[in-house]
Amino acid sequence: MAAIRKPIPVDEAINRVWKHRRQGETEYVSIQNCDNRRLAEDITAKHPVPPFPKSPYDGFALRSADTLEADSNTPVTFEVVEHIGAGEVPRKRLHKGEATRIMTGAQIPDGADCIAMFEICQSYEKGRQSYMSIKRTLDSGQNIIQEGSEVTEGEKLIEQGTLINPGVKALLATFGYSQVKVAKRPVIGVIATGTELLDIDEKLQPGKIRNSNAYMMVSQIIRAGANYKYFGKLEDELNASYETIKEALEEVDILITTGGVSVGDFDLMPAIYEKLGADVLFNKVAMRPGSVTTVAANEGKLLYGLSGNPSACYVGFELFVRPIIQHCLFNQNAFLRRIKAKLADDFPKPNPFTRFVRSYVTYENGQVYTNLAGIDKSNVVTSLAYSTSLMVLPGGTRGFKTGDEAEVLLLDDQQGQREFK
Amino acid sequence: MAAIRKPIPVDEAINRVWKHRRQGETEYVSIQNCDNRRLAEDITAKHPVPPFPKSPYDGFALRSADTLEADSNTPVTFEVVEHIGAGEVPRKRLHKGEATRIMTGAQIPDGADCIAMFEICQSYEKGRQSYMSIKRTLDSGQNIIQEGSEVTEGEKLIEQGTLINPGVKALLATFGYSQVKVAKRPVIGVIATGTELLDIDEKLQPGKIRNSNAYMMVSQIIRAGANYKYFGKLEDELNASYETIKEALEEVDILITTGGVSVGDFDLMPAIYEKLGADVLFNKVAMRPGSVTTVAANEGKLLYGLSGNPSACYVGFELFVRPIIQHCLFNQNAFLRRIKAKLADDFPKPNPFTRFVRSYVTYENGQVYTNLAGIDKSNVVTSLAYSTSLMVLPGGTRGFKTGDEAEVLLLDDQQGQREFK
Repeated sequence: MAAIRKPIPVDEAINRVWKHRRQGETEYVSIQNCDNRRLAEDITAKHPVPPFPKSPYDGFALRSADTLEADSNTPVTFEVVEHIGAGEVPRKRLHKGEATRIMTGAQIPDGADCIAMFEICQSYEKGRQSYMSIKRTLDSGQNIIQEGSEVTEGEKLIEQGTLINPGVKALLATFGYSQVKVAKRPVIGVIATGTELLDIDEKLQPGKIRNSNAYMMVSQIIRAGANYKYFGKLEDELNASYETIKEALEEVDILITTGGVSVGDFDLMPAIYEKLGADVLFNKVAMRPGSVTTVAANEGKLLYGLSGNPSACYVGFELFVRPIIQHCLFNQNAFLRRIKAKLADDFPKPNPFTRFVRSYVTYENGQVYTNLAGIDKSNVVTSLAYSTSLMVLPGGTRGFKTGDEAEVLLLDDQQGQREFK
Repeated sequence: MAAIRKPIPVDEAINRVWKHRRQGETEYVSIQNCDNRRLAEDITAKHPVPPFPKSPYDGFALRSADTLEADSNTPVTFEVVEHIGAGEVPRKRLHKGEATRIMTGAQIPDGADCIAMFEICQSYEKGRQSYMSIKRTLDSGQNIIQEGSEVTEGEKLIEQGTLINPGVKALLATFGYSQVKVAKRPVIGVIATGTELLDIDEKLQPGKIRNSNAYMMVSQIIRAGANYKYFGKLEDELNASYETIKEALEEVDILITTGGVSVGDFDLMPAIYEKLGADVLFNKVAMRPGSVTTVAANEGKLLYGLSGNPSACYVGFELFVRPIIQHCLFNQNAFLRRIKAKLADDFPKPNPFTRFVRSYVTYENGQVYTNLAGIDKSNVVTSLAYSTSLMVLPGGTRGFKTGDEAEVLLLDDQQGQREFK
């Protein structure tokens, strides 16, 4: 009935998909709506920061040369000629014996070359004139934040592909990016297959289950930063399924189907790939769950046939779809961040294939631990809810014990990495 | 001019704010729009999973008793009486010598008590009748996923306050939650103060800087899961500022101002708190940056006066506002996750106050390291862009060296923890 499929290693499968990556398009969005988007260009400083020399403290601006004679017994007195707050522009140039009362963040007046904090000054009024005196010397440049001392004009600050977080947004505001050039979100189509699937509103019926994969996958698509288009669910009927998939491909950048990729009597996807003339990159991967994961390329678009099993579907998305979306969004660290950790649980069952185990990470005294998110039956959907990482357990003839070292792929980490490994 | 302020420890400041926490309201959203919301109720299993006994493989369902005589020399033959795919309901009860061809996920027919995978069966046709034969015995229950073996009806699966991630969404779909009861997002008002602030579209002017804090804070509010309302920026003028703040308080759950909380000549917030009759919880915290952070309670609403310095504002939000938002969203782990790490850089400058240093985390062989995100001048805005954590360096008379141990608060981690420490 079905040809024997030859499983290929996960790395090789990733490489085959990765060759079909494409960078996405760009668009401008208002800074108000740029959160969690990815920059489509490098951000450079449009002006020096600070744009003018400024005071880091509330105090007095003065000429350091005038403090040369000051010591604890001989205070030097200055006439206060101006009083400026942040945002005000000093109008008076300081001459010998003159000082300006100045607030944090305000621009240093011409002539002044240092700031004396309030704490070291005595101030008083005489008639309508203000004075201040000081009992110590100050150096030229002391307590002045020089123009451009934080950032010089034209300096490259943030790389293309960076996720816009609160700090990046602050920077965009600082340099007046009211419109921000970001990566356009690619559109990922989702189709669920299987006669056993009920709509979410339907009452449970004998032999049937509700369609959870499509909802899960849409959520993964959103987490990965893309948009989705859901084309509903297909019955296990070849011609209708073929037509729906062919039309859907026109409307999306990437198409994902779940289910129908095994070798069961009603698994139609292999026949559909053939009818489309799609180039099947692989249809069996040496991994659990998700060994039947299939990826095909069709007229420049990737067509993913993920397993109908929820965990296999989940893992297949994170391993094979997410990096492609990230690349499309200009993220230069498109792959999941991979770190080393110690097992916090036993995992006694050996498997010839590499396992990607639903897990979460804990920390103890600076050491990272990886914990099972649930019993790893590939059909236990509840454990996905608690997963924030995938533990990578290499295939072999032995199981794993608490304290063993393992690699972990972090699902909620924004940093990522350049390569799969 | 201003009374001396007495700094209180960070923990004490957090406690004072925490006493004013309030749980939020709830609302229903469609499952399509529930991503990244927080559950306002526990999720329990509305039916067993699986809801019926099912097959984990493609194969034949049969009665194990009928295989008793089978061995490698004496195959036992069965008449195949039905053929069912996933989602189909078996109509025939199996009697002695009968088998049902069954696909992965399909419901086990009455009478059958085990599944023989295709791989161990011989099948053939004779006339129009299908037969299969088997050369080994099977046990009762073998290869059957029993009803309720993953989840029993009524079992509590997910706690109130949990963030809806792809796995949680799959679960909601499985149990038919087409409407999901979630925490309503509280509305956080934002007002920037300071005559030095320019709008983002304005050309840079002498002595002025663009308003970046408001944009940054809005982004932090979004990251924390709340909605925002931006009331613009205020000039340093008491009566107009008072009126704006008083009116804004009517429209929001929490109000944040940035700037105006120091003791500078134009810092109006202390006077405004007094005029409102607000209860000032503290106006000085033994921390850097952000020692002037002020929090007041006014008619049951929290009113945050964060520093105008970007880093101080950022840290003040994450320490004092975010946990209150999280509690409002029913998150039972409202505080930032705090882990131990080793310093990857020197931080030689001692400070009597606790420092919250902009940083990011790296991993090496299972060990967590904390890295400086930039020079820690409190006015360097660029380093915030690279920050995914805050390093906590206790106050004291000495600096810190590479390899020293420090605590780190993770900003992008979804897990959080129940207490600040």
